[in-house]
Amino acid sequence: MTMLKNPSQKYRAFTPINLPDRTWPNQVIDKAPIWLSSDLRDGNQSLIEPMDGAKKLRFFKTLVSVGVKEIEVGFPSASQTDFDFVRTLIEGGHIPDDTTIQVLTQARDDLIERTFESLKGAKKAIVHYYNATAPSFRKIVFNQDKAGVKEIAIKAGQTIKRLAEANPETDWRFEYSPEVFSSTETEFAVEVCNAVIEVFQPTPAKKLILNLPATIEAASPNVYADQIEWFGRLINQRDSVLISLHTHNDRGTGVAATELGLMAGADRVEGCLFGNGERTGNVDLVTVALNMYTQGVDPELDFSDIDAVRKVVEECNQLPVHPRHPYVGDLVHTAFSGSHQDAIRKGFAQQDPDGIWEVPYLPIDPADIGRSYEAVIRVNSQSGKGGITFLLEQEYGISLPRRMQIEFSQVVQKETDRLGLELTAEQIHNLLEREYLQATAPYALQRHRLQEENGISVLDLEVTDSGDTQTWRGTGKGPLEALVAALPVAVEVMDYSEHAIGAGSQAQAAAYIELRLDGGRSLHGIGIDSNLTTASIRALFSALNRALAQAELQPA
Amino acid sequence: MTMLKNPSQKYRAFTPINLPDRTWPNQVIDKAPIWLSSDLRDGNQSLIEPMDGAKKLRFFKTLVSVGVKEIEVGFPSASQTDFDFVRTLIEGGHIPDDTTIQVLTQARDDLIERTFESLKGAKKAIVHYYNATAPSFRKIVFNQDKAGVKEIAIKAGQTIKRLAEANPETDWRFEYSPEVFSSTETEFAVEVCNAVIEVFQPTPAKKLILNLPATIEAASPNVYADQIEWFGRLINQRDSVLISLHTHNDRGTGVAATELGLMAGADRVEGCLFGNGERTGNVDLVTVALNMYTQGVDPELDFSDIDAVRKVVEECNQLPVHPRHPYVGDLVHTAFSGSHQDAIRKGFAQQDPDGIWEVPYLPIDPADIGRSYEAVIRVNSQSGKGGITFLLEQEYGISLPRRMQIEFSQVVQKETDRLGLELTAEQIHNLLEREYLQATAPYALQRHRLQEENGISVLDLEVTDSGDTQTWRGTGKGPLEALVAALPVAVEVMDYSEHAIGAGSQAQAAAYIELRLDGGRSLHGIGIDSNLTTASIRALFSALNRALAQAELQPA
Repeated sequence: MTMLKNPSQKYRAFTPINLPDRTWPNQVIDKAPIWLSSDLRDGNQSLIEPMDGAKKLRFFKTLVSVGVKEIEVGFPSASQTDFDFVRTLIEGGHIPDDTTIQVLTQARDDLIERTFESLKGAKKAIVHYYNATAPSFRKIVFNQDKAGVKEIAIKAGQTIKRLAEANPETDWRFEYSPEVFSSTETEFAVEVCNAVIEVFQPTPAKKLILNLPATIEAASPNVYADQIEWFGRLINQRDSVLISLHTHNDRGTGVAATELGLMAGADRVEGCLFGNGERTGNVDLVTVALNMYTQGVDPELDFSDIDAVRKVVEECNQLPVHPRHPYVGDLVHTAFSGSHQDAIRKGFAQQDPDGIWEVPYLPIDPADIGRSYEAVIRVNSQSGKGGITFLLEQEYGISLPRRMQIEFSQVVQKETDRLGLELTAEQIHNLLEREYLQATAPYALQRHRLQEENGISVLDLEVTDSGDTQTWRGTGKGPLEALVAALPVAVEVMDYSEHAIGAGSQAQAAAYIELRLDGGRSLHGIGIDSNLTTASIRALFSALNRALAQAELQPA
Repeated sequence: MTMLKNPSQKYRAFTPINLPDRTWPNQVIDKAPIWLSSDLRDGNQSLIEPMDGAKKLRFFKTLVSVGVKEIEVGFPSASQTDFDFVRTLIEGGHIPDDTTIQVLTQARDDLIERTFESLKGAKKAIVHYYNATAPSFRKIVFNQDKAGVKEIAIKAGQTIKRLAEANPETDWRFEYSPEVFSSTETEFAVEVCNAVIEVFQPTPAKKLILNLPATIEAASPNVYADQIEWFGRLINQRDSVLISLHTHNDRGTGVAATELGLMAGADRVEGCLFGNGERTGNVDLVTVALNMYTQGVDPELDFSDIDAVRKVVEECNQLPVHPRHPYVGDLVHTAFSGSHQDAIRKGFAQQDPDGIWEVPYLPIDPADIGRSYEAVIRVNSQSGKGGITFLLEQEYGISLPRRMQIEFSQVVQKETDRLGLELTAEQIHNLLEREYLQATAPYALQRHRLQEENGISVLDLEVTDSGDTQTWRGTGKGPLEALVAALPVAVEVMDYSEHAIGAGSQAQAAAYIELRLDGGRSLHGIGIDSNLTTASIRALFSALNRALAQAELQPA
C-alpha cells in the first residue's frame, strides 16, 4: 500500500537549526507589518497568460485602493512589458505620494543599468536585487563557491549604489534577497547580508530591506521561524535593517510560515492577493491580514469589499479563487449542516452589535468584508439525485453557477417550508421561472438592436416601465458593457457565464449574471434564448429587476 | 485606508496558554500517524449537492486503494443516506479486513441506539461521539454549565459502552471529541476526557481515541500545538489513549496546525483528501502525507497516481482542486520563468537516478506521483493580447481548458524555435488544426449512429484504419461511456468539457477531452462540429490518435 519507492532513499529530511532558546513561540502578532505586494511581478512570471499593461494598471490601482504602500511592479530588465509598465506608472502620474514602487533585478550590471533606466523620474523607488546563496544553487546552477556568491552580492550592490547616487532626483531605497534563504546555511546568509550592509551603510532613518525568501518551502513553518529569529540575532545593525518575509506554499504552510516569521521578529511581508505566484503561489496577503483583523489587530489593509478585490484579481490572473479559500471563497460563510445553522442562528440572536464578535462557526462577521452568511438548508432528503442542481441539469439542461446555486437553494427552501414537502423537478423549475425568468418589473425588455464595428458595440433598447415605453442607448467594448452603459441605474457586473442547452439548430443559450447595485449585495439573473446576445441581455434585466425589488424592501 | 471598524472593538485576540517549557519546536515528524478520512461524512454535510450512495462507495474504494485504514463513513443517525450506506458497506462485504469504518453520533441516547443499529454485523467499528465543551457553545448554544457538559459526555459514553457489550460480535473501538477543543479551556477538556476514560477503561492494548478538534481555527498553529502538548501532559493513562488531531483551515493554517500538533505528540490525524469540509475545509491529508514523503518519511499512503485520486474526489465532491494546490494542482509542477526553467534543466541533467532528489524548484519528483514537469516557454513576447489563449479565443472562439493550454504551449514553442519568430493567430490556429483536428490516424471516424433509450446509449461507429473499414459498437450511460466501451483499446477519460462557438443556428460546439492510455500520461484532443455529440466523438478520436502516436514513439 505504500508508494513504490521508499522515500528515505530519495528524499532527505531538512536539517533544522538548533535553537532551543527560541522565543518566537511566546510571541503574539500585535501590529501590522509593512506589506509588499508582488502580484504584478508574478503577473508576468507565473501565469499562463501574463498580464498586459492594462491589466497591470487595473491591478495596481486596486492594490493602492486596499492600502498597500509598497508594490513590486515588475522585472523591467527582463521584460519589455514590465519596462513599459514602469514608464506608464511614472509618466502617467499613477503613483500616489504615499506609495513606493519596487522593481526586481538580477545581480548583473547590464540588467541593473536597464533597471535604473526604467525608473527615471520616479519620486521614490525600491531597487530589489537578489542572487542565489543556497548550496544546491551554488552547486547545480551557478557552479560558484561561497566567496564567489558573496562577491556577486557586493559588486551588484556597489553598482546599484553608484547608479542611485548618480540619479539623486529619486528617493531611493534598497532591498537584497539571498535567494532560497530557507535552504541556505543561516550563518552564510548572515555573512552575505552583512557584506551588503557594508555596501549600503543603512541607518535607522534609512533602513536596508533584507528579504529572506522561502523560495521553495522545504520544511515545516516552525523551522523557518527559527531561521528568522536566528538571523535577527546575528545580523549587524539590526536597528538599520528591515527583515522581510517572502514565503511560498509548496507544503501548504505559507501563511503559517509568515505568521511564525512575524512572531520571530520580522518587520515586513511580501506576498500576493489570494496567494498567486509560481507553482503553489506566494503567501496570501489577504489571509494574513484578515487573520490579524479577527484577532483585533488592525492590518492597515482594507478588505471591506472583498468580492470587488477578488473580481479584479480573478480577471487579471485568469485563475479562480477556490470556493473554500479562507475569508473569500464562495462556500466559507455558508453552513449546510442543521446543527451548525442552529448554533449560528442562536449566535446572531445573542450578538451584541457593539460587543465582541462571538457567533459560532463564523470566525469573522461576513458583513465586515462585504459578504453575508448563507444557510443552505437541504430540502428534506433533497440531496444527491433528488438535489436542486441535479434535477435542473438532468431535466432542463440548466447548470447554475455555484453562487447562484446557493442563492436559489434559499428560494427553494422558502417554498418547501410553505408546502412542507419535497419538490419535483417541475416545481423547482417553475420556481426558477417565477423568481428569475419572469422578473420583468420594473423594466421589461421589448427589443434590442446591436451594431458592432471595430470592437465597439452600440446597443439600442426598447424597454417598458409600467406600460411606459422608453428607449435606451449605450456604447461599450462588447454588448454587455454597452448594456451597462445604457442602464438608468449604476450597476456592477460581478460575474457572467453562459452555456448551451441542447445541441444543433435547436440549441438555446442560458446566460447567468451576478450583479450588484451600489453598495448592495450581489444578486443573480438568468436569461434563456436561442440568441446568445438576447440571453445575456435578458439575464442582466432579470438580475437588475430582482436587485431593484430587493432594494425597495430594505429600509432607506 | 483601514477598514471601517477598528477591529480591536469587535474582535478579541485568542488567549494562548502559558507553556514556556514546550518541547514540540525541537521535534521532527519521523513516522506516519494513523490516518482517518472524514471525506464521506463531509460528503454529506458540507457540499451543495451531498454525495449519494454510489458516489460514497466509489470514494470509499478510492480511500481503501490509497491505504487509509480508518474511514469515517457517515453520521447514520442524522441521515438516511448515511444509514443506508453503512448497511451497504457491511452487507455488500465492501470493507477489507484491515480497514475499520467509523461513524459519528451526537451524545444522545436515541441517536446512539440508531447508530448501533446501522453497524449490526460489522466486524470492526469505531463509534465516535462528541459534545460541545467550548465556552461560547456552553453559553450560546446549549445553556449548560461545565458540570452539565461533563455529565453529557459520561452518560453518552455509558450508553455506548452498554450497547457495545450487548453486541459482542463486533470488535468495537471508541472515540470521543470535546467539540471546539481549540476554544475550550485545556484543563476542562482534560477533565471531561479523563471522565470519559473512566467510563471506557482503555488499556495499552485497546486504546481510546481522544480527538481534539480545531473545529474553527481561532489562533496561529503554534497555539494549537501548545494545547496538544499540554493536553498530552495532563491526560490520565497516556499510554492507553490515542491523541487525534482534527484541524480546519479558517485561517489557512490547517496543514501547519496538524504538523505542529504531530510534533506535539499526537498519534492520529483526521482530515479529507485535498481538504474538503465545512467552510474552508478540513486539513488536506494528501498534503500532510506528501510533506512527510518529501522529508524521506514513508506516509503509508499511496499517491503514486495522484491525478486518478483527484478525479474521483472532484467528481464526488463536485468541487475543483485549485490549480495552485500543493502537489496536485495543474500549475504546481510547471515553470514559466526562464531562470527557473534553466535551473530545473540543469538539476535534471545532474540528478543521480539513485541519489537524493535535488532538482531546484521541484520539492518532489513529479514522476513519484504520476505527474510530469512542464516548462511553459513564452513565445517571445507572446503574452497578454498576443498570447496563445487570447488569440485563439478572440479570433476563433476557441477556449482551451487550462491543462490543454499548457500542453499546446509546448507545441507552439517547438514551432517558434523552428521559425525563430512570433506566430500570428492564423499560424497558431493552423498548428492547432494540424496537431489536434487532423489527428485522424490510425483511426479516422467516418460516421456514427447513436440510439438512446432509458438513459442507455448505444453507439455504432464506422472507422477506417489505414484504408481498412471497421465497425465498432459500444453501450453505456451516455454517448461518451458508450464510445469508450466501443474502442479497441482501454482508455481512461480524465476530463471533458465543451462550449459553443458563435451563437444561434450557426453555432458550433467545441469539445475537449483529456485521456490516457494504460499507465501513460494524459493527452488532449479537440473536436469541433455543429452537432455536440459529433464534436465529443471527434475530440476523443483526436486524443486517442495522439496518444497512440506518442506511445509508438516511446521505447517499449
